[in-house]
Amino acid sequence: MIRVTVWNEYSHELRKEKVAAIYPKGIHGAIADGIAGPDFRIRTATLAEPEHGLTDEVLADTDVLIWWGHRSHEEVDDAIVDKVCARVLDGMGFIALHSSHYSKVFRKLMGTSCSLLWRVADEKERLWVVNPAHPIAQGVGRFFELEQEEMYGEFFDIPEPEELIFLSWFQGGEVFRSGCTFRRGRGKIFYFRPGHETYPTFQNSNVLRVISNGVKWAAPEPGLDAFGEWPSPAPALEPVPNEKKKG
Amino acid sequence: MIRVTVWNEYSHELRKEKVAAIYPKGIHGAIADGIAGPDFRIRTATLAEPEHGLTDEVLADTDVLIWWGHRSHEEVDDAIVDKVCARVLDGMGFIALHSSHYSKVFRKLMGTSCSLLWRVADEKERLWVVNPAHPIAQGVGRFFELEQEEMYGEFFDIPEPEELIFLSWFQGGEVFRSGCTFRRGRGKIFYFRPGHETYPTFQNSNVLRVISNGVKWAAPEPGLDAFGEWPSPAPALEPVPNEKKKG
Amino acid sequence: MIRVTVWNEYSHELRKEKVAAIYPKGIHGAIADGIAGPDFRIRTATLAEPEHGLTDEVLADTDVLIWWGHRSHEEVDDAIVDKVCARVLDGMGFIALHSSHYSKVFRKLMGTSCSLLWRVADEKERLWVVNPAHPIAQGVGRFFELEQEEMYGEFFDIPEPEELIFLSWFQGGEVFRSGCTFRRGRGKIFYFRPGHETYPTFQNSNVLRVISNGVKWAAPEPGLDAFGEWPSPAPALEPVPNEKKKG
Amino acid sequence: MIRVTVWNEYSHELRKEKVAAIYPKGIHGAIADGIAGPDFRIRTATLAEPEHGLTDEVLADTDVLIWWGHRSHEEVDDAIVDKVCARVLDGMGFIALHSSHYSKVFRKLMGTSCSLLWRVADEKERLWVVNPAHPIAQGVGRFFELEQEEMYGEFFDIPEPEELIFLSWFQGGEVFRSGCTFRRGRGKIFYFRPGHETYPTFQNSNVLRVISNGVKWAAPEPGLDAFGEWPSPAPALEPVPNEKKKG
Repeated sequence: MIRVTVWNEYSHELRKEKVAAIYPKGIHGAIADGIAGPDFRIRTATLAEPEHGLTDEVLADTDVLIWWGHRSHEEVDDAIVDKVCARVLDGMGFIALHSSHYSKVFRKLMGTSCSLLWRVADEKERLWVVNPAHPIAQGVGRFFELEQEEMYGEFFDIPEPEELIFLSWFQGGEVFRSGCTFRRGRGKIFYFRPGHETYPTFQNSNVLRVISNGVKWAAPEPGLDAFGEWPSPAPALEPVPNEKKKG
Repeated sequence: MIRVTVWNEYSHELRKEKVAAIYPKGIHGAIADGIAGPDFRIRTATLAEPEHGLTDEVLADTDVLIWWGHRSHEEVDDAIVDKVCARVLDGMGFIALHSSHYSKVFRKLMGTSCSLLWRVADEKERLWVVNPAHPIAQGVGRFFELEQEEMYGEFFDIPEPEELIFLSWFQGGEVFRSGCTFRRGRGKIFYFRPGHETYPTFQNSNVLRVISNGVKWAAPEPGLDAFGEWPSPAPALEPVPNEKKKG
Repeated sequence: MIRVTVWNEYSHELRKEKVAAIYPKGIHGAIADGIAGPDFRIRTATLAEPEHGLTDEVLADTDVLIWWGHRSHEEVDDAIVDKVCARVLDGMGFIALHSSHYSKVFRKLMGTSCSLLWRVADEKERLWVVNPAHPIAQGVGRFFELEQEEMYGEFFDIPEPEELIFLSWFQGGEVFRSGCTFRRGRGKIFYFRPGHETYPTFQNSNVLRVISNGVKWAAPEPGLDAFGEWPSPAPALEPVPNEKKKG
Repeated sequence: MIRVTVWNEYSHELRKEKVAAIYPKGIHGAIADGIAGPDFRIRTATLAEPEHGLTDEVLADTDVLIWWGHRSHEEVDDAIVDKVCARVLDGMGFIALHSSHYSKVFRKLMGTSCSLLWRVADEKERLWVVNPAHPIAQGVGRFFELEQEEMYGEFFDIPEPEELIFLSWFQGGEVFRSGCTFRRGRGKIFYFRPGHETYPTFQNSNVLRVISNGVKWAAPEPGLDAFGEWPSPAPALEPVPNEKKKG
């Protein structure tokens, strides 16, 4: 049983009728419903809740945190950002969706600007699989399409992904590294591009399938806690000239 | 249920009493016994069998192939090598143990000489985990030791591993990239260093744990076959100037 | 001074008027002329020459080998392929252009099928830079276009590139990893996608700029020979229990 | 001509006679003298200077910044840290030496804790080359030794290095990834392990050679500025349904 928390700033849905019509339960609700299944225990959390819904108890009880943010990145409290990043380094999986490339959490974990090109023009996106053996790529075939999406284009200013899983083709002429994995500390991170709030992307079965695959991939290994801490100065395992020396 | 085939040249055990005393059922037998469990259906195969025990039927019925070879690499038939490599590209996992760095299969999949330094001097090896979140590293702590092993030293002439999991320290002064993963086609490959035939390495619980972890990691994803073939010339998905043109 | 050899099968140019009209001196001639400059000493070699023009003397006198092949891959002698690959492992740079993804040399160095999708339909290709700091990407801006090219599409069955430099967008709806680097042994390899024989791609200034950048990047470092050989069994650098033991 | 700035907290040298005896001109002075040559124009900067010696003018006039810090990481002003990181993302090379793994700049660029094991026991370190073709590895042979150094051990909590160049063996039984490269934005980063203040490491010719190689590797490419900015919303390069839409 993987403990999943879906975090959403839940801001557009409350301000724009068009978005509310697509996501009446919020983007978090759509994702939670869309990936529900016997392997997951899912809760949601939003910006307006105390501590943004990400209390120490919730974070400790989360194996994988899914994040969607856009217009309200700056309203996320730095202390919460630090806690989330620390939990990732400690083993919690983190899935950053779409405009969360600019979230404080993702940028802090990447160390780069995470900037990119964008355009909202109702254009077609086609996501191609470039790593067919990867667990996240299973079940979507060689490619899948989204009839209308926001465009994100290169250069996407991220560290070199450890694994590249999807590349997007956009009708307007751009390409994008749309599915990327990173490890930070003991935690696994998956960035997945689609999901502009004015399109029903989180009702698309392929998108939901990828997010669900991502949760399974990012969940910490059962044995992870056994890795343990180690003291420094580290006791020598073999004879050394002068171990008692002060550091 | 993962279908595992443990392949061994089974040559030292039949020629040297010392090796036979350590591995009375052969190295293949020790590995098969050592990783046995409810998740695996295990068979073995050896060089002397017809087609080296790797018939089309066996290969088609294998999810992960474990390989141990040393003195008899050149006796492995090129046609079998080609079949094994083709199965790996098609999705079968492949685990190359110790001196199998010089096996025809591994070298063909790597494209390099796979040369390294070596020395047999009953020295200590200590394997350090450098990727604690990786499934293959679970359950062995921060490091584990083998009291006596053959030394393998850098430069190990392999392509840059996609994931580096273990680094070895040797008593005689060398280091080695001892746990490395690679993807080739749709297949996953894990190289794991320990396992000289004159030491009881394949009775070590940490070594067996790593091999067992490796099998689970290398097993093909259930959805893999759905990736499917695609024709070329590929039909255009969007309008192009001159699709009927001859290639 | 970098010693460059441009190899071409020189087959289409002698058989098809259209190709001969674009490349009257052959594709090798166009590349040699196009990248000429004070830093390079350039020669060419073709399939029909004795030993395909790649004698031991020529290979020993080559820092970077550029390769273009398409219809005649199978006519390249395996002994020459082995020599070229050995020279790459020994430090010679190798630049595989376009349909050379299927050349014997490239496939042997990769260990995979190197298959891909293709289509010849006079469509537009746009190459986006995804690694702006890389020396190979300098001087072409954020992207550049080729008005008409053959399409190559994913999945491109290569090992994960060590560095990804260009991604292509195609008019017909596909994407492709168009600029990829790999290290094999002590040699550097650059795969660059464009260059179908029926288009004047090797007269395009951006394409020539990238190839020229690639030559500079792939040239062996001056100190490379000093890396040297090392004996095995390797003498221990620290005390070990039993160095005189027989391996 | 590469413009190099060597930054040192310059703290131990002023407080401990033993360190001052080894580095009478400071660690920065030793490095500046040790790598001096016709290709470099070198200045130094230290913590106690106004803006730590890293004014906007100095940063704008720096191609590669070398950093050594240890006991005074927390005294480095966050505003300067932000400026240094921004310059790296913009193309300035950054070389982090030894205990600078814990510097604010390096940690911010990595996004991880950068923790490791350590011990000061006058023990031997041996650095092995694992990427012989890399420009940073030239001129030091297969390995080199430092008779006495501080030990750093795994797990080193960094993102997976893009290139791994050196692995260290320590007398006391540990190993370490001692030479690692990363790209962040348009800047290149090299982490190099040796350099504890109580040993004459920065007088060792191999260490100086590696740092000098690192500066050449990390210097921005001449054409880098031409990469340029790009507006968003990005004008479509091909027809899209609804370009004038508000984002």
